[in-house]
Amino acid sequence: MPISRKLVAEALGTMMLLAAVVGSGIMGERLSGGNVAITLLANSIATGAVLIGIILAFGDISGAHFNPAVTLMVAIERRLLWREVPLYVIAQLVGALSGVAVAHLMFQQPAFAMSHHVRSGGAQLLSELVATFGLMSVIWGCSRLRSDAVPFAVGAYITSAYWFTASTSFANPAVTLARAMTNTFSGIRPVDVPGFIIVQLLGALLATTLWSWLLPSLSQSATMVVLPHPERTSTHAR
Amino acid sequence: MPISRKLVAEALGTMMLLAAVVGSGIMGERLSGGNVAITLLANSIATGAVLIGIILAFGDISGAHFNPAVTLMVAIERRLLWREVPLYVIAQLVGALSGVAVAHLMFQQPAFAMSHHVRSGGAQLLSELVATFGLMSVIWGCSRLRSDAVPFAVGAYITSAYWFTASTSFANPAVTLARAMTNTFSGIRPVDVPGFIIVQLLGALLATTLWSWLLPSLSQSATMVVLPHPERTSTHAR
Amino acid sequence: MPISRKLVAEALGTMMLLAAVVGSGIMGERLSGGNVAITLLANSIATGAVLIGIILAFGDISGAHFNPAVTLMVAIERRLLWREVPLYVIAQLVGALSGVAVAHLMFQQPAFAMSHHVRSGGAQLLSELVATFGLMSVIWGCSRLRSDAVPFAVGAYITSAYWFTASTSFANPAVTLARAMTNTFSGIRPVDVPGFIIVQLLGALLATTLWSWLLPSLSQSATMVVLPHPERTSTHAR
Amino acid sequence: MPISRKLVAEALGTMMLLAAVVGSGIMGERLSGGNVAITLLANSIATGAVLIGIILAFGDISGAHFNPAVTLMVAIERRLLWREVPLYVIAQLVGALSGVAVAHLMFQQPAFAMSHHVRSGGAQLLSELVATFGLMSVIWGCSRLRSDAVPFAVGAYITSAYWFTASTSFANPAVTLARAMTNTFSGIRPVDVPGFIIVQLLGALLATTLWSWLLPSLSQSATMVVLPHPERTSTHAR
Repeated sequence: MPISRKLVAEALGTMMLLAAVVGSGIMGERLSGGNVAITLLANSIATGAVLIGIILAFGDISGAHFNPAVTLMVAIERRLLWREVPLYVIAQLVGALSGVAVAHLMFQQPAFAMSHHVRSGGAQLLSELVATFGLMSVIWGCSRLRSDAVPFAVGAYITSAYWFTASTSFANPAVTLARAMTNTFSGIRPVDVPGFIIVQLLGALLATTLWSWLLPSLSQSATMVVLPHPERTSTHAR
Repeated sequence: MPISRKLVAEALGTMMLLAAVVGSGIMGERLSGGNVAITLLANSIATGAVLIGIILAFGDISGAHFNPAVTLMVAIERRLLWREVPLYVIAQLVGALSGVAVAHLMFQQPAFAMSHHVRSGGAQLLSELVATFGLMSVIWGCSRLRSDAVPFAVGAYITSAYWFTASTSFANPAVTLARAMTNTFSGIRPVDVPGFIIVQLLGALLATTLWSWLLPSLSQSATMVVLPHPERTSTHAR
Repeated sequence: MPISRKLVAEALGTMMLLAAVVGSGIMGERLSGGNVAITLLANSIATGAVLIGIILAFGDISGAHFNPAVTLMVAIERRLLWREVPLYVIAQLVGALSGVAVAHLMFQQPAFAMSHHVRSGGAQLLSELVATFGLMSVIWGCSRLRSDAVPFAVGAYITSAYWFTASTSFANPAVTLARAMTNTFSGIRPVDVPGFIIVQLLGALLATTLWSWLLPSLSQSATMVVLPHPERTSTHAR
Repeated sequence: MPISRKLVAEALGTMMLLAAVVGSGIMGERLSGGNVAITLLANSIATGAVLIGIILAFGDISGAHFNPAVTLMVAIERRLLWREVPLYVIAQLVGALSGVAVAHLMFQQPAFAMSHHVRSGGAQLLSELVATFGLMSVIWGCSRLRSDAVPFAVGAYITSAYWFTASTSFANPAVTLARAMTNTFSGIRPVDVPGFIIVQLLGALLATTLWSWLLPSLSQSATMVVLPHPERTSTHAR
């Protein structure tokens, strides 16, 4: 698979992810008559469901990371060449920002708007650490023998994590950065972004360290993507 | 598989799809006491869930398009004979209109009623472009190696897209035409229909062009249906 | 598989189904503060979800019919011996009534209570015809090549059909009879039961007739259960 | 698989389970404006969804019990060595308590707080008996031929059982004990804990006795975990 296709896949998938996160937040806010729980219900179901769709669709091309933290960890585990990491991250950022713009334009708003949504404090940071630790654990746990289930595991986990973390589980540095550019339900103040990103990377690293002990075969696998080709999995599994 | 069976499958599946879209909208509106978010939650879950059921049930017969945009794109990619395209589209339209009538009769309303629901403007058109682009991307992305997951990918995607697009994702010309004939939650003014259909076809074409580059093997595959027989997939995958 | 085990499986599964239908209706009514849409959302999700669990659990033993209409159609298609039909139906009825009693006792109510919930008129009957036609279509459509997906297809379909039919999709004579014995959200007046059962059988028969033409191989298959053993499916599919 | 890894997997998975149960309850209570049905909807979806993620992730390491009742039953059916049972249970308890603390800290509350949530009386005890009987039935029913579906079957079942039992289905002694330490939506008064645990074990034992008759091959299988390795399943299934 040439790198150009992988990058387009990462950009496109991350764009669809952000369009879903931001768009469903706007729609939820508009329709729920002030009941935040119903907005979050819509937001969490829409995000988890779109993840199932896009991981299935783009997984065989780029691995369907859509997340710089995942890309970094996959590189650390030698399933992605290091020189592809910055390209992946740039593609994800471009995609994430485009997704925010697409969502805004679909709802007749300016393409970008600085967020005023305060998300600061230790509880928020702990939430992001936990959220990203959990996300990476689910990915690593499925990656060796159950890679076909990754789209469902990740979608289900994120729907849940929106509810069980105080920060509604950003768990993704590209998503975090892009969400600073929407002053709607899913936004985050730019000043709160760096803290989120740091603990997200910490959470991902913690999970990766733990899982490289839990599943030592992890780093010996030749698979380069989180969601490998079915053929390759088949061969592997027999 | 003789063409007569394929056409009955397309008509029946599209009928069930429309009965679900229109029927769950009516039920939601009746029960939610004016909370539109709860109505849309019911409507989006009911539509995504019925798609899982009917794509699984009819996929092996007709490919489970239920959507003229999908049928056209599948023909462009040479997975359907061109002479079958108009027959497919007619079957889908007949099915879609029957589905609206069935929904209305189940809820004690006249079989058809012109909609007054305004859905116009650039934001609505952009929404439909995005929605259909996303739908075709999910279908093409899964079609090569993950066709067994298509029913779940499409169902999950549509549930999500109801929330993240301002138009609640019609993403289907037959569905759009038929929904002009219901003056309930899911309706659309007849005058807004042509614009919707044009951008839906554009979105589908955009996705198909992109994916024929992303997955060049797409057009070389001999598979004729979106959701091929398991045997054929098996053979293919080994 | 000896018949005694099949009957216990049918009774137990139908009991769990009814406990879920009736129990979640009571819980929803108690907690939703009068918002019927939220009650139905809970009721529909709980019913669809329990179906996934119990069809997966009991499918390999009895076929997981839990529904006299399904049992009859399976016998008509020669996948069940006719002499087992009455036993299956009795087991389902015993299970269904036990499930109502279990739900009532869990919520501190008398084991049985005649329902006063009016569900009469042509629109209700049409709803049940459509609901059962759709259910049997999903089952037959998946049964030949996608039997592994039946639990998910049926669960998703029923969650959807609760919303898109005016009757909230009983689609099951044993369920209908048992629900006459609960004077809560999910109840049905005894006098409305016979009409429901007649149109349910009609809908199921209509679907079976249609599918025996859509999939002629249906009646030639040696499979005796709706959800056959994976091994048998595997052999079959290769 | 060395025992140390199994125990870490059990502790970590149970921690994530409790974080989800308690955390989503707190979030739901905070956002739903007093509508308990919406809180329970969020709570039930979040719990079922996280179960899908963590059973898929940890299943191949420890069997993904996260539940002393399951561990005991698995040992009774000789799929786990008896000397590992107390270790499993301790790991689950440590994990469960950590999960409560993590949830509290994410929502800026003290790590532990004695619950005042009354859950007593025969109806509550019957609910827990039914809930655990159903859970074990789903696990045993899938374990022989459908172990790949266990994560989805268990997640769906628990989402449903939250609604159809009066106790909202704890169905897990470690979860019950840990939830005594949260004075939020999901809490349980310490004095009500022993009764819950006793009927949970009874329900599990009842199900295990029944299923060892329903599926005699159950105890002859060499599989040691609830969710075995795909390879092993593959070999088994051919």
